Amino acid sequence: MKTLQVLTVLILFLPASFAAAQSHPQLNLMPMPASAQPGTAQLAINQSFAVANSGAHDSSLDEEVQRFLAQLSRQTGIPFRPKAGATPTLQIHADHGREAVQKLGEDESYELTVADSGAKLTAPTTLGIIRGLQTFLQLVQITPAGFVVPAVTIKDQPRFPWRGLLIDVSRHFIPIDVLKRNIDGMAAVKMNVMHWHLSDDQGFRVESKKFPKLTGMGSDGMFYTQAEIREFVAYAHDRGIRVMPEFDIPGHSRSWFLGYPELSSGAGPYTLEGGGIDPIMDPTRESTYKFLEKFIAEMAKLFPDPYFHIGGDEVDGKQWDANPKIQEFIKAHGMKNNQDLQAYFNRRLEKIVAKNHKTMVGWDEILHPDLPKTIVVQSWRGQKSLAEAAKQGYRGLLSYGYYLDLMWPASRHYAVDPMADAAATLTPEQKSLILGGESCQWAEWVTPENIDSHIWPRNAVIAERLWSPQEVKDVASMYRRMNAVSYDLEWLGLTHDSARTEMFQRMAGNTDVEALRVLADVVEPVKDYDRWSDQKGPIDFHAPLTRMIDAVSPESDTALEFSDLVQRFVQSEYKDQAAEAQIRSYLTTWRDNDARLHPLLEQSSLLQEDVPLSQNLSALGTAGLQALDYLDKGQPAPDSWKAQQMTAIDQAKARQADMLLMVVAPVQQLVQASVGQGPHN
Amino acid sequence: MKTLQVLTVLILFLPASFAAAQSHPQLNLMPMPASAQPGTAQLAINQSFAVANSGAHDSSLDEEVQRFLAQLSRQTGIPFRPKAGATPTLQIHADHGREAVQKLGEDESYELTVADSGAKLTAPTTLGIIRGLQTFLQLVQITPAGFVVPAVTIKDQPRFPWRGLLIDVSRHFIPIDVLKRNIDGMAAVKMNVMHWHLSDDQGFRVESKKFPKLTGMGSDGMFYTQAEIREFVAYAHDRGIRVMPEFDIPGHSRSWFLGYPELSSGAGPYTLEGGGIDPIMDPTRESTYKFLEKFIAEMAKLFPDPYFHIGGDEVDGKQWDANPKIQEFIKAHGMKNNQDLQAYFNRRLEKIVAKNHKTMVGWDEILHPDLPKTIVVQSWRGQKSLAEAAKQGYRGLLSYGYYLDLMWPASRHYAVDPMADAAATLTPEQKSLILGGESCQWAEWVTPENIDSHIWPRNAVIAERLWSPQEVKDVASMYRRMNAVSYDLEWLGLTHDSARTEMFQRMAGNTDVEALRVLADVVEPVKDYDRWSDQKGPIDFHAPLTRMIDAVSPESDTALEFSDLVQRFVQSEYKDQAAEAQIRSYLTTWRDNDARLHPLLEQSSLLQEDVPLSQNLSALGTAGLQALDYLDKGQPAPDSWKAQQMTAIDQAKARQADMLLMVVAPVQQLVQASVGQGPHN
Repeated sequence: MKTLQVLTVLILFLPASFAAAQSHPQLNLMPMPASAQPGTAQLAINQSFAVANSGAHDSSLDEEVQRFLAQLSRQTGIPFRPKAGATPTLQIHADHGREAVQKLGEDESYELTVADSGAKLTAPTTLGIIRGLQTFLQLVQITPAGFVVPAVTIKDQPRFPWRGLLIDVSRHFIPIDVLKRNIDGMAAVKMNVMHWHLSDDQGFRVESKKFPKLTGMGSDGMFYTQAEIREFVAYAHDRGIRVMPEFDIPGHSRSWFLGYPELSSGAGPYTLEGGGIDPIMDPTRESTYKFLEKFIAEMAKLFPDPYFHIGGDEVDGKQWDANPKIQEFIKAHGMKNNQDLQAYFNRRLEKIVAKNHKTMVGWDEILHPDLPKTIVVQSWRGQKSLAEAAKQGYRGLLSYGYYLDLMWPASRHYAVDPMADAAATLTPEQKSLILGGESCQWAEWVTPENIDSHIWPRNAVIAERLWSPQEVKDVASMYRRMNAVSYDLEWLGLTHDSARTEMFQRMAGNTDVEALRVLADVVEPVKDYDRWSDQKGPIDFHAPLTRMIDAVSPESDTALEFSDLVQRFVQSEYKDQAAEAQIRSYLTTWRDNDARLHPLLEQSSLLQEDVPLSQNLSALGTAGLQALDYLDKGQPAPDSWKAQQMTAIDQAKARQADMLLMVVAPVQQLVQASVGQGPHN
Repeated sequence: MKTLQVLTVLILFLPASFAAAQSHPQLNLMPMPASAQPGTAQLAINQSFAVANSGAHDSSLDEEVQRFLAQLSRQTGIPFRPKAGATPTLQIHADHGREAVQKLGEDESYELTVADSGAKLTAPTTLGIIRGLQTFLQLVQITPAGFVVPAVTIKDQPRFPWRGLLIDVSRHFIPIDVLKRNIDGMAAVKMNVMHWHLSDDQGFRVESKKFPKLTGMGSDGMFYTQAEIREFVAYAHDRGIRVMPEFDIPGHSRSWFLGYPELSSGAGPYTLEGGGIDPIMDPTRESTYKFLEKFIAEMAKLFPDPYFHIGGDEVDGKQWDANPKIQEFIKAHGMKNNQDLQAYFNRRLEKIVAKNHKTMVGWDEILHPDLPKTIVVQSWRGQKSLAEAAKQGYRGLLSYGYYLDLMWPASRHYAVDPMADAAATLTPEQKSLILGGESCQWAEWVTPENIDSHIWPRNAVIAERLWSPQEVKDVASMYRRMNAVSYDLEWLGLTHDSARTEMFQRMAGNTDVEALRVLADVVEPVKDYDRWSDQKGPIDFHAPLTRMIDAVSPESDTALEFSDLVQRFVQSEYKDQAAEAQIRSYLTTWRDNDARLHPLLEQSSLLQEDVPLSQNLSALGTAGLQALDYLDKGQPAPDSWKAQQMTAIDQAKARQADMLLMVVAPVQQLVQASVGQGPHN
């Protein structure tokens, strides 16, 4: 295992480099490189900036350099006019070109040296150059002397070869232009796989010329043509990103059955809206495999990536149970249960996939010793499941902990490591089977308008987890750098920040959304699958997603800051006056905000449900300010007052309009401190 | 003059309708319709919204309806899913289709009736439907009951048949996609001519297949291909907008001479950067006319509009004076001066233009009795010039008073009427020769990034001046409606507001621009051509335009509001406590802002020049607060204090970094009031 030895040596040397990189306040890089040694000078970025390529190149790299220049020009506002004959500012050199179809594990390493006289970016392949150019862009910053890149020596390569983002386009259709800007974002944070969840119960999104009813009846008319897909795959390839399609079968496949009910295990008819038991594909009929042979052959040609995802998750088996012929088949073939039937289906499926020169990928549930070791298992269940697969010799990807739709804070995703827990106990050889991971954007609650806000900037943190050395895990540094990269991503065309403003303006009916922002800044959507609990019957995937919950950030920066201030104040034994002043300023704003905001909330159908939220925030402001007054006077607050405040606090804790007020706990801390109980846990 | 009689009758009836419309707080329309009678109910806009067309249609109208639905969906966030068989919400009916090439004076009238049961939009032509759909979009608003359109009966038609926006793309190249979103904005405010200023000294922007060196040598490589132009003209036509090209000759034409120096009156060689005396086309050589014949024939085919603008402005004649052969020609042909020579040139030019079935349009300077009465004179000089032309029987357009690049407040543009001053004295027949007007966006100081912010929302006010009856001129109503339409325009894709935020973020190097906004919100760029006064030598049109002046609004809403508050306070004899509280709140924010902002200003090369501006604002805050304290105490402020404050105020009046602090006057008013002098004029 020569590679592993080299890696071990690298890792031994790494901590020093990180320490240096992380202590240097100006390196706002995400993902953090494997090694970064800051220098002292800086390279000026001005109108004469130019790039020269002395190494391998092709039209794809030439275009990448043009895009790089355009992006640098957008960020700095400088139109570049290089002087003829002058030394180029950035010299790039790749030893070799890239593969025509990007390979898993293709060399992405690069070295970037920036000095005051110029910068040099070298890499074994042009793919490494693509990665290094993104690093260069992140280094650009404004200073008193103009735009510069600080001097630095970076040697970088990814920790895992598979760093993906899954985008579900079935539940809500996401147009190609929205996907393209997300590809740009992925490239900026060095992700290399776009996992395209193209079919599910609620919609089939790929044109099939062989089976036109898949979209004709299995979608609401919104799908990608084959020409669009080819162009999109090329777009992603140009940016160093593989596109892996997923067609989820035998479950999650209702949309197939509208046009082709004979594929299903029940009688039908089916509607996209659903209801009743979940339909499943019938693995007992030969005609199913004939269909899949033709279909997969068509799709295998359309998608050049060597990996092909067949889903395979959450087959509840109810429709199989309800079908006597299927139960007969199970008995006749000596199977014990539905799981065996799915394994049988997967074995046959794998052969079809392999015949088309593709490697099959599927979710945890496909793991079965009958399947060849070539397949890849993607785990939504966790490292334990991944470790079990690795012990059996299967390659795996982690997605557990990386579900962006669960509205977790960035720090929680950041803490999830593919090599942690059960995976940490694997042998080095078994560990090498863990290829990386994928974040997942399931699309029940997103539209083209707010999908960016759900993916970014948190996805950058998962990208770092998968690219940077395992030791890079300082949370404060992560948040600082995530905010910096978030800013860069808006320049790239992502709308995670600007769309939020537009959505608030829609709710308000005008551009004056300051008071609305005060409220929105301290709430978060309910977590995990809690939003679903309100849902009666199937979700209407054509209903507007224009409520406050649809616009607010999954993570409240303000709440984080306020909580930090309260901790500082409490730890100072209520003596830190600067902290108290800031706490008072927040509390006053919140106390007074309801009076400003109430008329707006009342006049908009989209905001009326937020009235109690605003009232609760106001009550928290009042409670906190009174608590501070007691603390300042040094006299314990009376019990009657405390009881009253605790009622208000309990009320504020309750979910309102599918959101949570995130400043309840620190206010409660102040109230409890003011009666002499000290900080509350 | 039957048309005029009908108009007169309409006008007699109008004031009542406006009064009703303007007193109704919910009709946020711009331009205000000729007649609008609000009802009491409202039409709900929900998922089942649908449009049905019972009249004339073509692919262009069908696409317009699709765009209308898409825009309505964006604004409301509602994906429309009309129920089969249900009554359509909006019924449209045009008696006739449109002209294949939009004609000057083509009927744009429409009637729109909205009731709670549905809406009806009728028009003589599909062009009127296009206008009416935009009115419908502006009527949509959010209420406690959801999105609605208030019941209303609108009968509308334009006051002038020619309502244009000139965009200069020579000084700074503006890409097609930026122009397209401005076309969308024009359509939203019912403008109907895009005047494309395609060549000037600094760049030639249209591909000529006959004379490729026009762009090959006469541009920085940025120009429109003929295919792009055809597509753009069709895009504008679909939205009811004519595209009139302008090729400015014989002056303003240096870019022609880089590739074709033989066209010029001097020896050359020429550069785009310029310097020396302004080159002019040589009107004495036959070869010039041969060139123009070929060129105009090519362009006449490319641009279908029957009007063709040849510029003709600002010919200083110096190069003609310096050329003995030209002076000889003048004498030999019995001309008196250079003006006669230009008139000779224009006569020959007009024949070429006419041979290509086009009507010649030019700036004031082309007016000469030798030219046929068919030509149109565009006046940058004013109504007097327009009136003189009309008296001689020439048709005219007003652009004086509509120069968006002069950074005037909206109210100043709004006050300029084509029929005012000298034009008011014309006979009805002469008046009918005044076709309308055009706002002008000259591009010395704009880039694709900030051009929207310079055009919008002020252009909407000029659009109203040219569409709505002359009597519509209430300034308060105008500002309220301009702000509403500004909000709509951002939903349409214009970036006048969002680009500003991005530019502030670039200056700051991060997304926290709150303190920067406080400063930016109370400044305006210097007015008229004052920015040029700093300029030494020719402008570098490739320099970044990324300073604060390039991002701030031409008009400070905050200053307007603050000034109103101070007037209210003064008029109440310093008793209006609510006004005082708001004044104090502003002054406190300004006083404290420099301490917050200073570190940011110091660390950014783009902001360092704004340090004195921020300090001055802080000093104004202090002065104003102290003045209020004296007023509150009822004791006159001491003279020594006053003298000190007046020094600070004088300093704050001075232009800084090409900007003006717009809150100096009201603060000065407070200071003077506090020493017992009362309000200062």
